[in-house]
Amino acid sequence: MTGVAGRADGERVLRDLRELATFGAFKTGVHRPTFSAQDMAARRWLCGKLVEAGLEASIDGIGSVFGLSRGPGSKVLTGSHLESQNEAGWLDGALGVIYGLEAARALGGGVDVAAWCDEEGHFGSFIGSRFFLGLLPDDEIDRLGNRYDERPLRGVLAEVGLAGVPRRQIEPGRYKAYCEAHIEQGDTLESGGLRIGVVTAVVAIWQYRLVATGEQNHAGTTSMARRRDAGLALTRLLGEIDRRFPAIAGPRSVWTCGRITLEPGAPSIIPGRAEALFQLRDADPAVLDRLQAELMALVEAANQEGRCPVALEVMSQSRPARMDEGLQALIEAAAEERQPGCSLRMPSGAGHDAQYLARVMPSSMLFVPSIGGISHHWTENTSDSDIAFGAEVYVDAVRRMLG
Amino acid sequence: MTGVAGRADGERVLRDLRELATFGAFKTGVHRPTFSAQDMAARRWLCGKLVEAGLEASIDGIGSVFGLSRGPGSKVLTGSHLESQNEAGWLDGALGVIYGLEAARALGGGVDVAAWCDEEGHFGSFIGSRFFLGLLPDDEIDRLGNRYDERPLRGVLAEVGLAGVPRRQIEPGRYKAYCEAHIEQGDTLESGGLRIGVVTAVVAIWQYRLVATGEQNHAGTTSMARRRDAGLALTRLLGEIDRRFPAIAGPRSVWTCGRITLEPGAPSIIPGRAEALFQLRDADPAVLDRLQAELMALVEAANQEGRCPVALEVMSQSRPARMDEGLQALIEAAAEERQPGCSLRMPSGAGHDAQYLARVMPSSMLFVPSIGGISHHWTENTSDSDIAFGAEVYVDAVRRMLG
Repeated sequence: MTGVAGRADGERVLRDLRELATFGAFKTGVHRPTFSAQDMAARRWLCGKLVEAGLEASIDGIGSVFGLSRGPGSKVLTGSHLESQNEAGWLDGALGVIYGLEAARALGGGVDVAAWCDEEGHFGSFIGSRFFLGLLPDDEIDRLGNRYDERPLRGVLAEVGLAGVPRRQIEPGRYKAYCEAHIEQGDTLESGGLRIGVVTAVVAIWQYRLVATGEQNHAGTTSMARRRDAGLALTRLLGEIDRRFPAIAGPRSVWTCGRITLEPGAPSIIPGRAEALFQLRDADPAVLDRLQAELMALVEAANQEGRCPVALEVMSQSRPARMDEGLQALIEAAAEERQPGCSLRMPSGAGHDAQYLARVMPSSMLFVPSIGGISHHWTENTSDSDIAFGAEVYVDAVRRMLG
Repeated sequence: MTGVAGRADGERVLRDLRELATFGAFKTGVHRPTFSAQDMAARRWLCGKLVEAGLEASIDGIGSVFGLSRGPGSKVLTGSHLESQNEAGWLDGALGVIYGLEAARALGGGVDVAAWCDEEGHFGSFIGSRFFLGLLPDDEIDRLGNRYDERPLRGVLAEVGLAGVPRRQIEPGRYKAYCEAHIEQGDTLESGGLRIGVVTAVVAIWQYRLVATGEQNHAGTTSMARRRDAGLALTRLLGEIDRRFPAIAGPRSVWTCGRITLEPGAPSIIPGRAEALFQLRDADPAVLDRLQAELMALVEAANQEGRCPVALEVMSQSRPARMDEGLQALIEAAAEERQPGCSLRMPSGAGHDAQYLARVMPSSMLFVPSIGGISHHWTENTSDSDIAFGAEVYVDAVRRMLG
């Protein structure tokens, strides 16, 4: 091993990240879907690196990679994920794994490294970390399949040689903390000239389906007075949300309508049914409650005034995952010691494995800046100096967590 | 032949319509797509009826059925279509064909009957009547295919035995008028307690594609201030159309957004592109011009104020087809003589073969009421007494047209 004991080696981190990016290289990013040949090769490559770092390496029966330190005493668990979204960036997930590896190398003991399988959800929702924590029931595994081609998860696990391989679950009492690094995926750090985000919480996501029911009819022979246009009813409701939400939202609330479907969807037919997928995200449950109450009021108003009944279905309501206050302070101290004023406490708008780890141990996350805030696209990037700086802060923060 | 010479026999008309509805019977309607086995059987059945009425019957090489009267003198051309929309009504098209047949039977000469192929557009747009008028180029026939399963029209024509069969084109000077009967497909007649619609024009349809271009991004990590949501830009524009159009529309203008597509269409991704299909219909070109000018102004305003450029593409702009004033008066006289105050002059919001026939000869259309205004659905219906009354008025009107 090279590097100065106790400190991150930025060049080594960049070298590893660049080598990892050759698995499934796509333009300047990577295409490394969960359990693809390139993904499995990356997992095996990581095992080699973990062994080289003196850890006990394994791939468990759900596909997560573990590197366990051998010494006594309670450990800090580090890591993130290896697979990527389709045709996406080289750092999303990979950065946190290599930072964990670097912490294990630099600190010489007490650091476990995990690459949680399928954080990107090609097959399910956080199956690696949830299984590790006993939060993934076997019957859910039976039901899961690839979201693009529907291959069953069980069959794919067998194809990649993981059928019958033991799955690792958390060893009670082993860990004092979890620390995950990740790219920010937004432009808050960059636009503020900052280098380190100290995550306060992973936001909750509340998802809804809005369905307007009208009367399918001929777009030429049905007068405006007579028609009951489900698409128009839905458009009006989305317009009201757009007008009302800004006044009652929190400073970091986001809300998104990602899909609208009009049925039957033909140019000359008045839609008889219209559906929208709508979601809210915030780290503060009180803000989410307020936004949901307004949403319900708007739906009720639409139903009293409009000609098409609108139904609101709550599809999911996750809870915000608070990061540990003490660990936040340690990351902040490590950052500010290196460059005063370089860090910001901020929520994570995206989901991460840390939101599940936080249920069973004090957990923390550190963000590095994303150039242009670009995420889930092959042009995603972070400057080399920010990557190296982030590694230094991260390793120092883990050192402080080990106490 | 039964019936009183010179007058329609309502019972005979109802009998024929019921027999025709056995071809492709579906619940209380019919499923008779163009060139299906049941459609071809209906065409052959009609040939038999035309021959029985003393006409020279044929199916031409594009699938239209003709019954030609043999006597001298100029003729009135009657008819409509035989095929149906999928799982649709028993009278849409069929009524106009049987009324034409009844006119030929009752008037004993001077009446030609046509069943124009594929008015319902399973393969193209009015291919039967357009071919008859020399408005369907051969290279368009080469390109056409079934809109559901993409079977090429040429291949299907061969399968049903029509390859190489001569196609009939209009004989110059043969006709003095065209008269087509149809169900209204709306509820104007029914809600006014009326029995006969005298069509003033087939409305023009102006079709547009609206495309908003934003920036596809993560719905959790992209702040509201930073995001460029193409779906939201489109929703706002549709909302403005909804607010502004009623004040400037004509009394019978209709406008419809039949499809909205957000891309990529995932719940957690801000749409980078959003598309809507939008159409206007009116019989008055001045009203269409006014609505289009407003649409363009709203798009321009959206482009000046909004963060996502919106493009407006004109997809098609048909012209309104005026029905002949003199023929309207004849239909009106025939209706009012039977029941004063029973008729209404009104535009047709739907397209019909008459819109093409009107380009080459004085043309006319007569509507009978649709129960509940239902159209393009198997529950479409008209009362027996309205069907019989319509036949009487129709035959009398054709008699007057023959002079």
